Amino acid sequence: MPETVSTTETKPDGVAAPVPEKHMRCIVLSGFGGLKMVKVQKKPEIKPAEGQVLIRVKSCGLNFLDLMVRQGVLDNLPKTPLTMGFECAGEIEELGENAPDFAVGDRVIAFTDYTAWAEHVAVPVQYVYKMPSNMSYQDGAALPMHYLTAYVMLFDIGNLRKGQSVFLHSVGGGLGHAVCQLSKTVEDVTVFGTASSGKLDKLKDNVAHVFDHGTDYVQEVKKFSPEGVDLVLDSLCGEDTNKGISLLKPMGKYILYGSSSIVTGETKSFFSFAKSVSWWQVDKVSPIKLYDENKTISGFQLRQLVFHQRQHQYVRNVMNKLFQLYSQGKIHPVIDSTWAFEDVADAMQKMHDRKNIGKLILDPNLEPKPKSPPVQEGTKGSEAAEGEKEKEGEHSVNGE
Amino acid sequence: MPETVSTTETKPDGVAAPVPEKHMRCIVLSGFGGLKMVKVQKKPEIKPAEGQVLIRVKSCGLNFLDLMVRQGVLDNLPKTPLTMGFECAGEIEELGENAPDFAVGDRVIAFTDYTAWAEHVAVPVQYVYKMPSNMSYQDGAALPMHYLTAYVMLFDIGNLRKGQSVFLHSVGGGLGHAVCQLSKTVEDVTVFGTASSGKLDKLKDNVAHVFDHGTDYVQEVKKFSPEGVDLVLDSLCGEDTNKGISLLKPMGKYILYGSSSIVTGETKSFFSFAKSVSWWQVDKVSPIKLYDENKTISGFQLRQLVFHQRQHQYVRNVMNKLFQLYSQGKIHPVIDSTWAFEDVADAMQKMHDRKNIGKLILDPNLEPKPKSPPVQEGTKGSEAAEGEKEKEGEHSVNGE
Repeated sequence: MPETVSTTETKPDGVAAPVPEKHMRCIVLSGFGGLKMVKVQKKPEIKPAEGQVLIRVKSCGLNFLDLMVRQGVLDNLPKTPLTMGFECAGEIEELGENAPDFAVGDRVIAFTDYTAWAEHVAVPVQYVYKMPSNMSYQDGAALPMHYLTAYVMLFDIGNLRKGQSVFLHSVGGGLGHAVCQLSKTVEDVTVFGTASSGKLDKLKDNVAHVFDHGTDYVQEVKKFSPEGVDLVLDSLCGEDTNKGISLLKPMGKYILYGSSSIVTGETKSFFSFAKSVSWWQVDKVSPIKLYDENKTISGFQLRQLVFHQRQHQYVRNVMNKLFQLYSQGKIHPVIDSTWAFEDVADAMQKMHDRKNIGKLILDPNLEPKPKSPPVQEGTKGSEAAEGEKEKEGEHSVNGE
Repeated sequence: MPETVSTTETKPDGVAAPVPEKHMRCIVLSGFGGLKMVKVQKKPEIKPAEGQVLIRVKSCGLNFLDLMVRQGVLDNLPKTPLTMGFECAGEIEELGENAPDFAVGDRVIAFTDYTAWAEHVAVPVQYVYKMPSNMSYQDGAALPMHYLTAYVMLFDIGNLRKGQSVFLHSVGGGLGHAVCQLSKTVEDVTVFGTASSGKLDKLKDNVAHVFDHGTDYVQEVKKFSPEGVDLVLDSLCGEDTNKGISLLKPMGKYILYGSSSIVTGETKSFFSFAKSVSWWQVDKVSPIKLYDENKTISGFQLRQLVFHQRQHQYVRNVMNKLFQLYSQGKIHPVIDSTWAFEDVADAMQKMHDRKNIGKLILDPNLEPKPKSPPVQEGTKGSEAAEGEKEKEGEHSVNGE
């Protein structure tokens, strides 16, 4: 049963006195733009509404999507200031009315429509999943965006079977690891992928064949598998759709995926822009081409499925399968690094620079890193640092 | 080992004498057009080449595809005269060199690129499948075109799962029955379909909801399932692609299928025609639309897969699964009627008129039906008969 939490405190003498408002730390986006727009702020504590649970957050997942939110390149963004974050794990601290399946103290994962990066978050029960007892909060926070997406694409859309092959970009990121691990649950599946050149060596144990982002991957894959692959997972933006389709074997499936609908950095609709230029026309696919070639093209957008198409039960079933695979030791999120809320800008920079191998985690209880002293090598060092920050403002869609 | 069959006969006195050439009856298309172009002819007996087996044919399948061949509305048709037919079952009578997996006397199904409608057919071993001992030749001849197509679409492309739903047109035809039976091997699957009005009552046992061909099926389906269906199977020609996609649930799959690439009755390329008119543009699908709606579009063309993309082993694996399901009593072809070679025109007419429920079979050993006496009701009856023949010349693509 939910405990009633009073906003006043009763003193021994029986006289009620106002209590100072409690606060929680949140990562707030004050406006769309660069790293400086992201700040840790204190906000008043919240209460769970009906059908919600209040979670004390222990770990949050950082995704490429968060960089896109920060830059304002998504369709249908809420207004700033907003509390960022789409996934977290923690402990239930309070129940709203009508949350019968949960109890205070439950260790849970939450999939949120923003607001996950805070010490407390109130989440509707349909987006809350009880974690297996042997799962860490870090692992829990790493599951929703990457493992749900990977599972649905590989198995429910892709119908991956024994002896088949998969190609995806950015195989070194969180999603890449999820795809590799889930693919290994099927006998004799080969994974091809691209990654930044610095990561190639580190990924060779997980992936059959890794190519540098810059190479002609179609040619590279066909050296190993002249017929192509059974499944191509291509993160939005669509420039590579026909290239991806050309990489498919007969009966192959191309899946265009991403976290959200994106717009250009100038907040001009990506779609209306795309429709007006010729290269996009090329990428429209005739059903007759698919028919002549025995091929499939799919789109998958997890947040659309969860928050707009309201397929809660379906997503919960997939999450339960993931829990089972986790408990069997068949999947285990690869955590690149964990960061204090105050260091979120550094974490975002690392993701932008594609330097992470696996998942980036934010931890509200972690102490911030001591700030390093200013570089003492003349202007060169600070220029380089400045350049890096500027680069970070660029728009990239092939996120890891 | 193949026996050497001599074309000469040795007389007791040791003097070789020429033997009269042996003949076999075939159904030959003498030129593209109406029913009169289809004739039973005698041709010289054939021998199996290397890698082939010679089959004494017992049963042949008639498909809508054969009507399209006759009318010359397919791309890449061979020249006439040609022996028609794409599937048959019979007994191996002779082995060519290098056919190690077969023996004389084997009961087999053959999937052919034309030539199946004959007393003998020589088929490359990769398209020949040994039948289960409890399978009749009629059932064997009914499997390749319809059951392979249905199986691949439902399970390998569609990934049909418990509780899902399927919609297809012409649910009363051979493919419709295959889809219904195979769907029932998955728990709690609902099949929606259209059929000719005369068949609705007869199909209600097999199909959850059958609608008349003429109704607005999207509206009808949504009365029962407001969200739509999980799988739409739509036979080519593409007019209904967007309608079919609109019938999909989130995560739904639309499969455009057919037997071959078709052209218009005027032998003008359907595709170049289609590209030049605006309604076809509408049917091109943007990957972004699929992405926004979490949908899939696929094309499937069985003969392309088998004869051009050379996926023999894959198709053989599917056939083996069908044999297993047949032996378990889970699938059983519904035979509408069996016809003598000489009555092929009547069989084609019945298919064109959509009067069949299930598969039409041709049997080279069956006696032709006695020809009925001329109608004695003045000119009216013969006019009607003439009208029917003319109608038969029309081009229709939604075959059963």
